Amino acid sequence: MGRNSLNVAVVGATGAVGEEFLKLLVERNFPFKRLKLLASPRSAGRKVKVGDEELVVEELRPDSFDGIQLAFFSAGASVSREFAPLAVAAGAVVVDNSSAFRMQDDVPLVVPEINPEDLKWHKGIIANPNCSTIILALPLYALHRALGVRRVVVSTYQAVSGAGARAMQELRDQLEHALRGEPITAEILPVASAPRHYPIAFNVIPQVDLFAEDGFTREEWKMVRETRKIFHAPDLKIAATCVRVPVLRSHAESVQVELERPVTVVEAREIMARMPGVEVWDRPEEQIYPMPYQTSGTDPVYVGRVRRDPTVEAGLLFWVVGDQIRKGAALNGIQIAELLLQQGLLSHAR
Amino acid sequence: MGRNSLNVAVVGATGAVGEEFLKLLVERNFPFKRLKLLASPRSAGRKVKVGDEELVVEELRPDSFDGIQLAFFSAGASVSREFAPLAVAAGAVVVDNSSAFRMQDDVPLVVPEINPEDLKWHKGIIANPNCSTIILALPLYALHRALGVRRVVVSTYQAVSGAGARAMQELRDQLEHALRGEPITAEILPVASAPRHYPIAFNVIPQVDLFAEDGFTREEWKMVRETRKIFHAPDLKIAATCVRVPVLRSHAESVQVELERPVTVVEAREIMARMPGVEVWDRPEEQIYPMPYQTSGTDPVYVGRVRRDPTVEAGLLFWVVGDQIRKGAALNGIQIAELLLQQGLLSHAR
Repeated sequence: MGRNSLNVAVVGATGAVGEEFLKLLVERNFPFKRLKLLASPRSAGRKVKVGDEELVVEELRPDSFDGIQLAFFSAGASVSREFAPLAVAAGAVVVDNSSAFRMQDDVPLVVPEINPEDLKWHKGIIANPNCSTIILALPLYALHRALGVRRVVVSTYQAVSGAGARAMQELRDQLEHALRGEPITAEILPVASAPRHYPIAFNVIPQVDLFAEDGFTREEWKMVRETRKIFHAPDLKIAATCVRVPVLRSHAESVQVELERPVTVVEAREIMARMPGVEVWDRPEEQIYPMPYQTSGTDPVYVGRVRRDPTVEAGLLFWVVGDQIRKGAALNGIQIAELLLQQGLLSHAR
Repeated sequence: MGRNSLNVAVVGATGAVGEEFLKLLVERNFPFKRLKLLASPRSAGRKVKVGDEELVVEELRPDSFDGIQLAFFSAGASVSREFAPLAVAAGAVVVDNSSAFRMQDDVPLVVPEINPEDLKWHKGIIANPNCSTIILALPLYALHRALGVRRVVVSTYQAVSGAGARAMQELRDQLEHALRGEPITAEILPVASAPRHYPIAFNVIPQVDLFAEDGFTREEWKMVRETRKIFHAPDLKIAATCVRVPVLRSHAESVQVELERPVTVVEAREIMARMPGVEVWDRPEEQIYPMPYQTSGTDPVYVGRVRRDPTVEAGLLFWVVGDQIRKGAALNGIQIAELLLQQGLLSHAR
């Protein structure tokens, strides 16, 4: 298919990640002929600016994918489970940002800088990893390839935008009320569908997504299982604690890694800095380290606070920050699509 | 000395911790005869309500401690270094909340639930540990005593009040401006005396206190060295990453512990719940875990999210939250003073 005949759909076009998809499609000159914005009936009819054009959001329906070759899904797992197979049946390749298909054996889970070769065996759906997984995976893979990673303990500081645009509004609303000394209400966080909601203003919540087995949340299991799949390292040992913080955008993570062999801080910085998509900002003597307020809206994943872990033979501590809507979601999805185009993989046996 | 003849001084009476000292002295019916509030010339003359009485803050001077038997210091390390020896020379016992004397061999560093026996050998100054250390130490000591702790990796989520009342105001001011879309300024955090300041509104800062050796901050080293001293465990292995979050009050910490022998989650909860000063709030199936907004202004240290660490033979993960102005500072100080009184230790060879 010619690059200029590409019809692209964005499902969940009015969400936080969907909006970023649209921004990036324009910013990166993604070669689409027609762009179809799809969303729930609630958002259908809304006008959205994409570059210089104004597009009308259409209601997502089973027949929405006629003539579409590429569809970005970012509207939650249940929408993906229902509509992604329909898009594939209609001939589209789906890049899915939800958790619906990530752990399916016949669906590649791809971070383009790490496992681009997995795109080759896609059967119509390619899964985009979870945001906190992608941000951890980039610097971790650099260490894994160079030195071998034995074990990872990670604690996250996750922005509310990971829970969508409504969670961002909830944080703003709560802060405005709290600053005026008024009572606040919580309806979205930690998880919209969970029975209990807690304030995020002036608070941290040690729950991201629903609870799953062994006392871990789904988000914590995602970091474990998705990283193993991306790295093709089924035995990689990872323990995660995922925490929501009152930040609008960009996740941060405090990481402890045990390696197969010792490494100096200078070498570790160099190894991570050579990884595409990673920037090292690490000059403690000048108080230089990455923080969410600096990294939001940018593409790389940033590493700082690299230290030898004095409690083990071959351990490292570091801090990583990345915009979870960009590299953690939409950017990674677009990069997948760009690779599919380059490699002529934007088709599949129906 | 009779309990009713006790003259007490509070140095730094107008700071965040000083105010809490005053509140707790009243709340706990601490048996003082006279209360002397001391502060810098800037705050001298201010009137402060203590219980039903209104007291005038006096300027801290070398002769401020005449006739004082007990002095709480909470005005920073340099004030303690200058004035605590003068208070001791005047006959007072000093409970010092600063870092000035904590690691001195002739100064006990005490968490009353853990090492009350160390009070016996004081020589006039008793040091109150750092807030994040106390909050970690309570549940960790329970595990250490019952099972033996080999190694600890901790990442903190520290409230701005750890940096004083001005940092709390800075967070509020920044949020008000940011919510109106106005530019914000940063003058206090991460460390007032450091060259660079960063916003804390909608941000997290991976620096608490100044940087020290090996890329760790002083705050991170405090957690290591103070815990070892309190536990009388000079070889205890601890690695800390200390992070400031936009919370007004109560620190949280994500903790990974390697133990001498395995323990079930149920046993671990019981061991920690039996520790005085610790409450276990841990029912993931009901989304019950401690958070700063619930724990601020209360005395205990709260533990939740207890899980077996699947990456090691005998490992545990847990989450701990405590009001760092209360148990993390003023309450621990008052508890030290109460023990000194009970044990007749409120005197020393001059």
